Amino acid sequence: NGIQEKIVGIVITHAHEDHLGAIGYLWPKLRCPVFLTGFAFGIVEKKLGEMGLLSQVDLVLLNQKSIFQIGSFDLEYVSATHSVPESNFLLIKVNGLTIFHTGDWKLDPNPLEGSNYDDKRLFEIGEHGVDLLIGDSTNAPISGWSGSEAQCRLVLSELIKKQPGRVVVTCFSSNSARLASVGEAAKETGRSLAIVGRSLNQFVMVAKSNGYLCDMPIIRSAEELSYLPKEKQLILCTGSQGESRAAMAKLATGQHFDLFLEPGDTVIFSSKVIPGNERRLNRLYDQLAKLKVSVITETDAEVHVTGHPCKDELIWLYNVLKPKVIIPVHGEERHLNAHEELVVSLGGRVQQVRNGELICLKTKPSGILTRVYSGRMGLAGKTLIPLSNEAFKERKLISDSGVVSVTVVIDKIGKLMKPVKVETIGIPFDEFEYLDFWQMLAKQSEQVISDAAGLDCEDDNVIRSLLKRMLRKKIKANLGINPRKLINLIRLD
Amino acid sequence: NGIQEKIVGIVITHAHEDHLGAIGYLWPKLRCPVFLTGFAFGIVEKKLGEMGLLSQVDLVLLNQKSIFQIGSFDLEYVSATHSVPESNFLLIKVNGLTIFHTGDWKLDPNPLEGSNYDDKRLFEIGEHGVDLLIGDSTNAPISGWSGSEAQCRLVLSELIKKQPGRVVVTCFSSNSARLASVGEAAKETGRSLAIVGRSLNQFVMVAKSNGYLCDMPIIRSAEELSYLPKEKQLILCTGSQGESRAAMAKLATGQHFDLFLEPGDTVIFSSKVIPGNERRLNRLYDQLAKLKVSVITETDAEVHVTGHPCKDELIWLYNVLKPKVIIPVHGEERHLNAHEELVVSLGGRVQQVRNGELICLKTKPSGILTRVYSGRMGLAGKTLIPLSNEAFKERKLISDSGVVSVTVVIDKIGKLMKPVKVETIGIPFDEFEYLDFWQMLAKQSEQVISDAAGLDCEDDNVIRSLLKRMLRKKIKANLGINPRKLINLIRLD
Repeated sequence: NGIQEKIVGIVITHAHEDHLGAIGYLWPKLRCPVFLTGFAFGIVEKKLGEMGLLSQVDLVLLNQKSIFQIGSFDLEYVSATHSVPESNFLLIKVNGLTIFHTGDWKLDPNPLEGSNYDDKRLFEIGEHGVDLLIGDSTNAPISGWSGSEAQCRLVLSELIKKQPGRVVVTCFSSNSARLASVGEAAKETGRSLAIVGRSLNQFVMVAKSNGYLCDMPIIRSAEELSYLPKEKQLILCTGSQGESRAAMAKLATGQHFDLFLEPGDTVIFSSKVIPGNERRLNRLYDQLAKLKVSVITETDAEVHVTGHPCKDELIWLYNVLKPKVIIPVHGEERHLNAHEELVVSLGGRVQQVRNGELICLKTKPSGILTRVYSGRMGLAGKTLIPLSNEAFKERKLISDSGVVSVTVVIDKIGKLMKPVKVETIGIPFDEFEYLDFWQMLAKQSEQVISDAAGLDCEDDNVIRSLLKRMLRKKIKANLGINPRKLINLIRLD
Repeated sequence: NGIQEKIVGIVITHAHEDHLGAIGYLWPKLRCPVFLTGFAFGIVEKKLGEMGLLSQVDLVLLNQKSIFQIGSFDLEYVSATHSVPESNFLLIKVNGLTIFHTGDWKLDPNPLEGSNYDDKRLFEIGEHGVDLLIGDSTNAPISGWSGSEAQCRLVLSELIKKQPGRVVVTCFSSNSARLASVGEAAKETGRSLAIVGRSLNQFVMVAKSNGYLCDMPIIRSAEELSYLPKEKQLILCTGSQGESRAAMAKLATGQHFDLFLEPGDTVIFSSKVIPGNERRLNRLYDQLAKLKVSVITETDAEVHVTGHPCKDELIWLYNVLKPKVIIPVHGEERHLNAHEELVVSLGGRVQQVRNGELICLKTKPSGILTRVYSGRMGLAGKTLIPLSNEAFKERKLISDSGVVSVTVVIDKIGKLMKPVKVETIGIPFDEFEYLDFWQMLAKQSEQVISDAAGLDCEDDNVIRSLLKRMLRKKIKANLGINPRKLINLIRLD
């Protein structure tokens, strides 16, 4: 309510889906310029184009290390490493305060794609002092160092060398260093490479046009690849999280158009399992096992490194920047807490802030000021809907026990004009007993109507309640379930 | 189809839910005697009693190490170790063949509760020769040895000793050795113990009445416990898989009646995460983190050991029994495959069999004979329904995009008698636009009806199709979803 008028801009730190994927959906509600560097620009441009918004949105293309101004904010992109090129820290100066937002980061001494992190600039910033740091908590519970992409590349090459048949590697589409590693492995092992899946092909296209993935060997089409001997094939494909419509799922169920896996082939999941996807990934592993295809995941070999800082990296950065206060962000409650514990153990100060909470930076951070209305939105078809919407609860209920619809037509004095019709959705029942039971319910409904007519009941809502009560009782007693009841009652004049 | 008449008995190997929990539901379809030892007897008796089936089912109580006969089968219980007392291997002799069914097992040199595995008898059986072994594959992909419950007990005691506040331990209710370990930890750390949750209390009761868990310290009620200092409290509770109605979930959300967790308290998940439960367990960990309660899981400390054999234990057993053929069971596709790989690497022979496949043992195992009708059943309310039932697909569809119900009353010549009524379930929509849109759809429906009447359309199914087509088009175009459409069309005579 008016808050969007106060927003002077959106600044994108890097080209990952969880940092820019919602722009096209939320921008119409915010309508402010969007600031980003070349690689993210390429990704956002494509997305906005597909949504027909490109001409409306003011995309401001900046170089890495840019110093720029938005309203009363002075900003600077400071180069970080992560799992995608052009990941940026953000230095913000406003009202005499220096604020450092980490975005997503890690300290990768050898990121393979994109520039190194700018430690020189970080030391300079630390010398001038940082009032507030807003920092990535994803791996705060994990000791040590996140590890380098270079190590992962070695492991992948070694592994692929050993495989006798086709090798399929699946990873996050936007993990460009990983894509480069697989390209490298193709060269080293003398295999030809195909890239399968829409999001991967799009990402590679944007990357190449921004000067990344230049050494990626010439890519064959999946069809072309399929004519080569198996041991010459390397396939990079989408669907590392078991997404049902992605290439990996199609390969596992033999439904891909150009490629078929055979016994002796190998699939490498070069990614972590995002919590919540275990069930469908297990199903995928099983489908592959049925095809006698070997599956290698990060639990079997070091085929994935995380893109987020572990404890020793957090300690390094906080020693360099010496922030007066740290606000943990990016993570679930337990990650934010672990981040706090680490900072406190280092003698630092933490201000915890949760979604919807507003703090005042005017003088110095001093606790939660107030709460604003906030929450998560979901995309239902074309419409953005708050996830708290009643409809989502209704869906859960009907998916648990189905729907019974009863249609009744009565005349002015409440007499039935036609036999009652009962229909059901999603109610399983022994086929032989099925018809009998619902016919019985139709008869019982007619009885309710005639009883109500006998009592001169003129209130349709009362009749609806009577019908619902009878249905609830009978269905509960016979089937032990409580479906949603739709009473379509029409009274003719 | 008559197959139940050929079933002469059900033999239970041990008292775990996945081995006896379905008896009460399936028995009415099978109606044969059930053979089991004392501990399983206690559990099944309780279940059948609650379902009102106890007087009907012929439960045959046997001692461990019993030799008994069912029809033409000679059977023998051979003592195994697992994570519940009285886990039995099953030796079956029929038609000159010796068959060994492992049930669930591991080799625990120090199982803490219940007898040790009967290695003497296993060696004897091996000397006489085993034609066919049907064996647990759960941990076949995992190298080494499963480890002992005794080690787990040490870790738990040490951990609990270190905690400053209340300690809550949650584990599988039927893991009696674990329950005993927690009881031991209570004694060693001078804490009082309460057991919270129905299934745990029931299990402890049955265990005690069968001579197990005898050393469990005197158990306080949760209310009584709550009057003690926090550091004197130890709570054993249900809900290790994040079950929403179990005690653990209630504690995490502050909804338990007698006990409240506070900052500094500790929750130990002394269990593995069953694949598929990660999402709700992560939610639970987060709820606990919000309460500033420490969470310790099997990834943080060795607070759980598996109850199934790893590779070295499989190798040990197969060296002792020297089975001619092994049928891998208990496990997903990839576990069965890993089991096969192991056996083949030892020079053994494997016959893979999947649900519904029938093999002939008459002469010697010789491949799949035929397939019988098979599948999984689900409990919908009171009724056992094949999971392949169309209704479950319908539920999935309506939970994805809701239901639109349109009620139309027309006269003999197809003229509308009342304005069309449109109702929706589970369709979220911006509140302001909501009414307008559905009213527009009602008007459009009326147009469809009047067009059809103009064409003298007398087939109600044609009118239904016309309505559905219009609704699909309009809803897709405006909302981008495709809900289930219920057309309640009544034609008066």
